[in-house]
Amino acid sequence: MNKLINEPRDVVGEALDGLTGAVATTSRLAGWTTAVRSDVAELRAAGKVAVVSGGGAGHEPAHAGYVGAGMLTAAVAGEVFTSPSVDAVLAAIRTVASPAGVLLIVKNYTGDRLNFGLAAELARAEGTPVEVVVVADDVALVAAVGAGRRGIAGTVLVHKVAGAAAEAGLPLPEVAARARAAADAVRTMGVALSACTVPGTARPSFQLTDGEIEWGLGIHGEAGVERTVSRPADAIARGLLDRVVADGAFAPGTRLALLVNGLGATPPIELDVMARAALADLRGRGLVVERIWVGSFLTALDMAGCSLSLLPVDDDVLAALDSPTTAPAWPRHGGAPASEPRPIEPPAGDAVPVIGGGLDAGDPLRRGLEAAAARLLQAEQELTDLDREVGDGDLGTSLSRGARALLEEVADYPGQAGPAAVLRAASATVRRSVGGTSGPLYAVMLMRAAAAVPEDRPVGAAEWAAAFSAAVDGVQEIGGAAPGDRTMVDALRPAADALAADLASGLDPWKALQCAVTAAREGTQATADVQAKLGRSSYLGARAVGHPDPGAHAVTLWLAAVADALGA
Amino acid sequence: MNKLINEPRDVVGEALDGLTGAVATTSRLAGWTTAVRSDVAELRAAGKVAVVSGGGAGHEPAHAGYVGAGMLTAAVAGEVFTSPSVDAVLAAIRTVASPAGVLLIVKNYTGDRLNFGLAAELARAEGTPVEVVVVADDVALVAAVGAGRRGIAGTVLVHKVAGAAAEAGLPLPEVAARARAAADAVRTMGVALSACTVPGTARPSFQLTDGEIEWGLGIHGEAGVERTVSRPADAIARGLLDRVVADGAFAPGTRLALLVNGLGATPPIELDVMARAALADLRGRGLVVERIWVGSFLTALDMAGCSLSLLPVDDDVLAALDSPTTAPAWPRHGGAPASEPRPIEPPAGDAVPVIGGGLDAGDPLRRGLEAAAARLLQAEQELTDLDREVGDGDLGTSLSRGARALLEEVADYPGQAGPAAVLRAASATVRRSVGGTSGPLYAVMLMRAAAAVPEDRPVGAAEWAAAFSAAVDGVQEIGGAAPGDRTMVDALRPAADALAADLASGLDPWKALQCAVTAAREGTQATADVQAKLGRSSYLGARAVGHPDPGAHAVTLWLAAVADALGA
Repeated sequence: MNKLINEPRDVVGEALDGLTGAVATTSRLAGWTTAVRSDVAELRAAGKVAVVSGGGAGHEPAHAGYVGAGMLTAAVAGEVFTSPSVDAVLAAIRTVASPAGVLLIVKNYTGDRLNFGLAAELARAEGTPVEVVVVADDVALVAAVGAGRRGIAGTVLVHKVAGAAAEAGLPLPEVAARARAAADAVRTMGVALSACTVPGTARPSFQLTDGEIEWGLGIHGEAGVERTVSRPADAIARGLLDRVVADGAFAPGTRLALLVNGLGATPPIELDVMARAALADLRGRGLVVERIWVGSFLTALDMAGCSLSLLPVDDDVLAALDSPTTAPAWPRHGGAPASEPRPIEPPAGDAVPVIGGGLDAGDPLRRGLEAAAARLLQAEQELTDLDREVGDGDLGTSLSRGARALLEEVADYPGQAGPAAVLRAASATVRRSVGGTSGPLYAVMLMRAAAAVPEDRPVGAAEWAAAFSAAVDGVQEIGGAAPGDRTMVDALRPAADALAADLASGLDPWKALQCAVTAAREGTQATADVQAKLGRSSYLGARAVGHPDPGAHAVTLWLAAVADALGA
Repeated sequence: MNKLINEPRDVVGEALDGLTGAVATTSRLAGWTTAVRSDVAELRAAGKVAVVSGGGAGHEPAHAGYVGAGMLTAAVAGEVFTSPSVDAVLAAIRTVASPAGVLLIVKNYTGDRLNFGLAAELARAEGTPVEVVVVADDVALVAAVGAGRRGIAGTVLVHKVAGAAAEAGLPLPEVAARARAAADAVRTMGVALSACTVPGTARPSFQLTDGEIEWGLGIHGEAGVERTVSRPADAIARGLLDRVVADGAFAPGTRLALLVNGLGATPPIELDVMARAALADLRGRGLVVERIWVGSFLTALDMAGCSLSLLPVDDDVLAALDSPTTAPAWPRHGGAPASEPRPIEPPAGDAVPVIGGGLDAGDPLRRGLEAAAARLLQAEQELTDLDREVGDGDLGTSLSRGARALLEEVADYPGQAGPAAVLRAASATVRRSVGGTSGPLYAVMLMRAAAAVPEDRPVGAAEWAAAFSAAVDGVQEIGGAAPGDRTMVDALRPAADALAADLASGLDPWKALQCAVTAAREGTQATADVQAKLGRSSYLGARAVGHPDPGAHAVTLWLAAVADALGA
């Protein structure tokens, strides 16, 4: 299995170094894979209760990510899926303990219970008040084989409740009582879509064939309690919540916090789908979700899948969940869900003003548009063939579809509103009728030209040239192409520049237009010698050399037709 | 491929419903897969610049997760890996636009450029000021084939810079200028450890054989620009940063923000390892990491791998990155890295006080300990055989190792300090010498007994009985077992209870001890009829029935030996 690690034996320490390197408020305890608040010396002096959790590594961001004001004072990690030693836990207790004492939050695994428990015993013998709260939130095994619950993602909510109580300065018995109440109340169940692979081992912890899922996974790669074919997200949420709600005996009206937890390799898009499913399911049961958090909170290395945790809440527990924390892995989002689906209605846009109707057959703009369209229709096969050599072959079809639509609609364009309105109408025709990349590029060309011509008076030759240049600017801007990139810009830009320069030097407009066509043609021919940098031709590399760019060729064709029509 | 989804065609909308259901401050735009700030009406009234981004879905939490005060006003999603339509973008612009205008942040893909660009054009025609900033941060293709850069994870940093400027009330040209400066400066490169699979398609976008990685991945499942064998995390970080730093021409001393981005299926533990590697590498280059964020910010569905982004920062950019936001996917962590590795030293613990040295051979406590140890040594094979039937077979070895250590050390125990000190010394012996579950349980038993006996005067029979009971309490507490769970508690608890009751009723201490042995033996025999609920035997289910629990049997053996020794 590929993993972003160095030596497998170093992964736990290096991950912790990454976290403490990135998060200045968390430090590593020298000699251990233990994370501790950087301000622990001040904390001890302040005499608040310290909260310590931990267990085997492989559950990141648990537990080091929850070290911070308002959550954990320290997090003790063992090797991957291996409980930390008694001495590791004891070193953490000694580091954080003030006379106010220490609360240990332990997930219900034999190794963790024993090592944290014995460390607590030793710390007590040293005079430190220590309480231990065991979290056993996994309902899967209870239902399946009657064995004890395991501690899984619900532990994170217990961290938050305990951390808030400690931060508030409550005495150890009260901090422990609140944590214990949360631990006793929280319920979780998960489903695995894949096993996980421990670094340094060759094989995943179990094998699922495609289309199978494991219900009631263990977070150490243990297989679940039941294997079924995969089900839709809604059915998975229902199946998990059936058991979680029944085990917790959560009656309708119960106020709850919901944790939608990814198991390590679950993409955020899938967790969001599960959040929707869980929210809808719980609403259907008459349960009240007061808070929801969605993310990867307590993982099993690279296992795919998720768990759903429910913690019943009252106002005190909500206040604890809402209280501030600096722990980096606690979500920024406050957790308040939307009470109801409440989509926002988009406002209607301004319709393009259509003043008057109809464009005279003799209008020069109509004649130009029709000439361009007719030429593109005529060239459909030629453009298709050329585009097949160097592109995906749809250019001829796309442009002829637009040309046909334009020829059908041009007579209805709002001629009395002036050329800008006509150009906007032509843009709308192209936008509706042409897909791919050509449609938006031609639509923008026409929009930019419309924006550039005066609305309230006849348009002069120099103004048309400026509008053409603005149109080409638009194409370059939204397409991102510059001259030389082997695109339609290689015809458009020289043509627009030639037109503007020739008119400025006093050339007759019709002759200037002919020169612009020549510039376009030369630009197009030059593309045959250039390897494409943008657009689909760029994927062909050198294969396109020798053929002119079809988009540039199309420009030359319609520009020549426009020049002929206007010069006639 | 297993995924937590319902119908593939519904995944984008359902994920958005999950997000907007979970996050009250973000709403869905009716009719579109667009996320918009719930307070958008007030925003329009306030007349601040709106910031809109988006693109194809499949990059969650991008971009909907960045909708919030201080980041995006709206995020427009298309189908998976497909640009949203012009009309979708236009609807978003119309929804958020105040007269102050709208900034569009677009990743550099042809489809996104065209659809966002044309929507901008149409919105401008409606009188809305719109600026477009294109992000093209991926350095991979530039180096490899000379084509245009793609926009990838660095886009998220551009969102933050732009959102801070808009929130500060700056005018559109200034918001756009700051966003453009960030977009021009940010550089990213990634590596894929797996391809991704689009929902509803049967196969991943490309195939990597085990042990291969793709450098310069595309976030739409495109293969990378180079395939190599997998490398250690440090080498991957170096390879990525070599190209990123060279492309950005980041000279030593340059102040940077670093984004360590997971591609969707990358577990947090691996991102932390990459964070460590990247921080160390950049420090080695003399570059100054002012901020670092580690997480899954802009993903490619379920692709495994990561990207590294670097954004040069000055105080203004830092202020923008640090400014508050309510966007749920922006990390809680402020981003300030640790300046130097600075592990915290754990304080030394109180040594167990050893006053005087040596424990007389005739001391009753020594005689009891030695008798127990000798009996366990003698029973090594018997316990091993029994444990092989129902457990993992290590009980005999474990207990005899402890017994041997105790027999070696007991003569040096601090007898003059009293029984509590001796018991603590015995606990330390067991803790050092015995692993597995037996070691901690026996160690705690001895610690609890030590804590229960008076330190300063001879210990009476009733006090010994109370200490025994406290010791059993400790075993139950850290082991989590109750009587009937088929563990050593099934011998310990009846014995302790019988001893206390018999002494309380006035029975001779030696006789009471004999009765306690009988109670232990009866409790042990009863375990043969019970299916285990805890410990390793629980995994065997009914198979264990018929054999007594080896742990309980061991207790009966040593307790009987102690009784014999003290009664003699």
